[in-house]
Amino acid sequence: MALRVLKFGGSSVADADKVRHVARLAANTADEGHQVVVVVSAMGKTTNHLVELGQTLMPAATNDATANRASGREYDALLATGEMVSTALLSLAIQQLGYAAIGLNGQQAGIQTESLPNRARILAIDTDIIFNHLNQGKIVVVTGFQGVDGDGNITTLGRGGSDTSAVALAAALQADRCDIYTDVQGVYSTDPRVVPEAIRLNQIAYIEMLELARVGAKVLHPRSVETARQADVPLVVRSTFHPEDPGTMVIALDNMALDRRVTGIACDKNQVRLALVGFSDEPGVAGQVFGAMANGNISVDMIVQAVSHPDPNGKLLNDLAFTVTAQEAADAKRVLENLLPTVGARGVFEEADLAKVSIVGAGMIDRPGIAADMFQALATANIPIRMIATSEIKISCLVPKNDADRAVQGLHRVFFPEAHENEASAASMVNEKIGY
Amino acid sequence: MALRVLKFGGSSVADADKVRHVARLAANTADEGHQVVVVVSAMGKTTNHLVELGQTLMPAATNDATANRASGREYDALLATGEMVSTALLSLAIQQLGYAAIGLNGQQAGIQTESLPNRARILAIDTDIIFNHLNQGKIVVVTGFQGVDGDGNITTLGRGGSDTSAVALAAALQADRCDIYTDVQGVYSTDPRVVPEAIRLNQIAYIEMLELARVGAKVLHPRSVETARQADVPLVVRSTFHPEDPGTMVIALDNMALDRRVTGIACDKNQVRLALVGFSDEPGVAGQVFGAMANGNISVDMIVQAVSHPDPNGKLLNDLAFTVTAQEAADAKRVLENLLPTVGARGVFEEADLAKVSIVGAGMIDRPGIAADMFQALATANIPIRMIATSEIKISCLVPKNDADRAVQGLHRVFFPEAHENEASAASMVNEKIGY
Repeated sequence: MALRVLKFGGSSVADADKVRHVARLAANTADEGHQVVVVVSAMGKTTNHLVELGQTLMPAATNDATANRASGREYDALLATGEMVSTALLSLAIQQLGYAAIGLNGQQAGIQTESLPNRARILAIDTDIIFNHLNQGKIVVVTGFQGVDGDGNITTLGRGGSDTSAVALAAALQADRCDIYTDVQGVYSTDPRVVPEAIRLNQIAYIEMLELARVGAKVLHPRSVETARQADVPLVVRSTFHPEDPGTMVIALDNMALDRRVTGIACDKNQVRLALVGFSDEPGVAGQVFGAMANGNISVDMIVQAVSHPDPNGKLLNDLAFTVTAQEAADAKRVLENLLPTVGARGVFEEADLAKVSIVGAGMIDRPGIAADMFQALATANIPIRMIATSEIKISCLVPKNDADRAVQGLHRVFFPEAHENEASAASMVNEKIGY
Repeated sequence: MALRVLKFGGSSVADADKVRHVARLAANTADEGHQVVVVVSAMGKTTNHLVELGQTLMPAATNDATANRASGREYDALLATGEMVSTALLSLAIQQLGYAAIGLNGQQAGIQTESLPNRARILAIDTDIIFNHLNQGKIVVVTGFQGVDGDGNITTLGRGGSDTSAVALAAALQADRCDIYTDVQGVYSTDPRVVPEAIRLNQIAYIEMLELARVGAKVLHPRSVETARQADVPLVVRSTFHPEDPGTMVIALDNMALDRRVTGIACDKNQVRLALVGFSDEPGVAGQVFGAMANGNISVDMIVQAVSHPDPNGKLLNDLAFTVTAQEAADAKRVLENLLPTVGARGVFEEADLAKVSIVGAGMIDRPGIAADMFQALATANIPIRMIATSEIKISCLVPKNDADRAVQGLHRVFFPEAHENEASAASMVNEKIGY
């Protein structure tokens, strides 16, 4: 008998019929002889509705940390109700199928978090509570996205919180597997809306998944992937409405056959490039710039310091470029402009409407030539590269946003040629038919 | 400095603007120098929506008490979320006005109940928790309608549960007053929709309020009135949207000037009369009938055992009549019919579409003639009386449902003549004008 944690997102439980379907999947898993813990998100758009109401009545943030914290506490108590509703309904639906089930909210499930409203981290889980119910033969349904702090206040875990709850529970319970049911059929080589030929991956390594999540693939939240990696709990990303499909298993790199150079291609179309140009080649400027960004709570993504070039007097001048999200661009530009006198730079330049296209794959370790293949593919498609950044298992290129889809399509043809074979033959068939 | 408990129903917090208004009333009460505890119901139709979802997924009740209890537990957890939402929102809205506030759910507020889903009774309240927050200068907002049992399961208190929560908190905290804010301006002499001249009462005794509640006045749930009576906490029934109106104070009879013979006239249009006729005048039949009703979970209201009459052989035969709600009439009739052979009765008769009209007033104690005035008023209006039942402070008459409104109007003219003076003069003015 194995222990399975199943997680269902909001679209999987959006109405009573869908809740019934999810109950059936949980019951089927129990029928296979497993102990079953189900983690569930709020139904459909519930959280959006609660956010809207809460924001309307929320006091403006002030310099009074106590007041901000008090409001954060109420806001968390508000948002946490969404998962309580779906947990109770799913428990009822499982009981309706004739199985014993119990619903536990974050407090009842013993999910202890730090005392930080809106984005608390899980500190510990009292597994005795859940094991006790499992050992009584119950399917245990647990609210995602929430916990309780040391003072009994309800906390929420921030974005991707239900995934985090599921994986943290799977880790604490030493589950054999954590199945993340969602509205896609697994992890794809790239976004199928951009490349219809994208292939579902059977396996992907945690670190590849992490890199893909960071560069724009939204299937799993990075925090939950990292938690699974540390506890070595296999994650399965699969479809709620095509449960017969095996999905994609996310596992340790060590357990994988590295038969691919590239595992996935991701794209983030929300990039703005800022550059501080013409400052003296003295140490410390980068530290000042990114220290100021951190103080302003602005996340910086790609960073490139350009080669020094001499000014008319022969003094060496540097350029420093980096990217931020479009939402934070105005703030970031203001921070840079305020630094101009301090660092003695000539100016600040901004280039908007950029996209970061990335290839990710543990298989690129020790395999040279992949970067060259990527740049060549972009050049063939006549797409300019505005910036390049690399990590051990990732290469990212900043390109004009308008070229981003073509870039992803071209890269997919190069790195997943097997997915495009039919297309080629289809094309040649068409060609044959029209007489080429 | 006094301690005030304020309770707001669902229609008082139906949207963000109304929540803001309620927050203002709570803040105003604090500005008057009081410590303030606010008890709040779920917003508008939230509970109805949750009930609908829950009923859809609820397993059918079975003979398995453990399974029924498990479903009841989840159903309670579901319904309790409605009050958690309004509590968090009201706390935020009070904070938005610049006041310190904290929201507590039933578990956080230390409201211990028995372990009985859907209609648990409050066993104890850990007042230290609330006093601690009050003494820190906070307005404390508490979810109505819910508590927690000894095992940490969320329970709900059944119909009128938020009133019960408010009054139980007021009693436990030894509050100086419990203000029940609602969508009416107080307790009226009768239903103003039936008698536009109905007058708002300044005061009413707990026991009068209890009798009125039992006979169809829906302002306060009997359980909350009884709790207030036992703890001697004055209740004030007042309007959320006309807070300048003093409302009606519900207090102990001892503290009242009994200047009225009748305090209120109530009407319940949901009565069906059942009669078991022609059974032998032997002891025990009534016990069998009402024992069987109790076993069938059917509430019996008015009961009349008719004078014995002889059958053709000279044997004394009895009739037993009683009323039940229209919803339970079919079940009750079936129970009676099953009893026919056992008790040797001749038959079962049913009369539907009846109404119970009641006059209530502690002032009728030791004042003879009130019953006669009531029957005379009904006779004047040519309304037949099908049954009569009396208590120390109440007289109820069963009349045809179609006559019920006229009965209430006629009784109001007799017992509250001052309310109809203008009407009379208005009528005479009209008469003058048209030349009579």
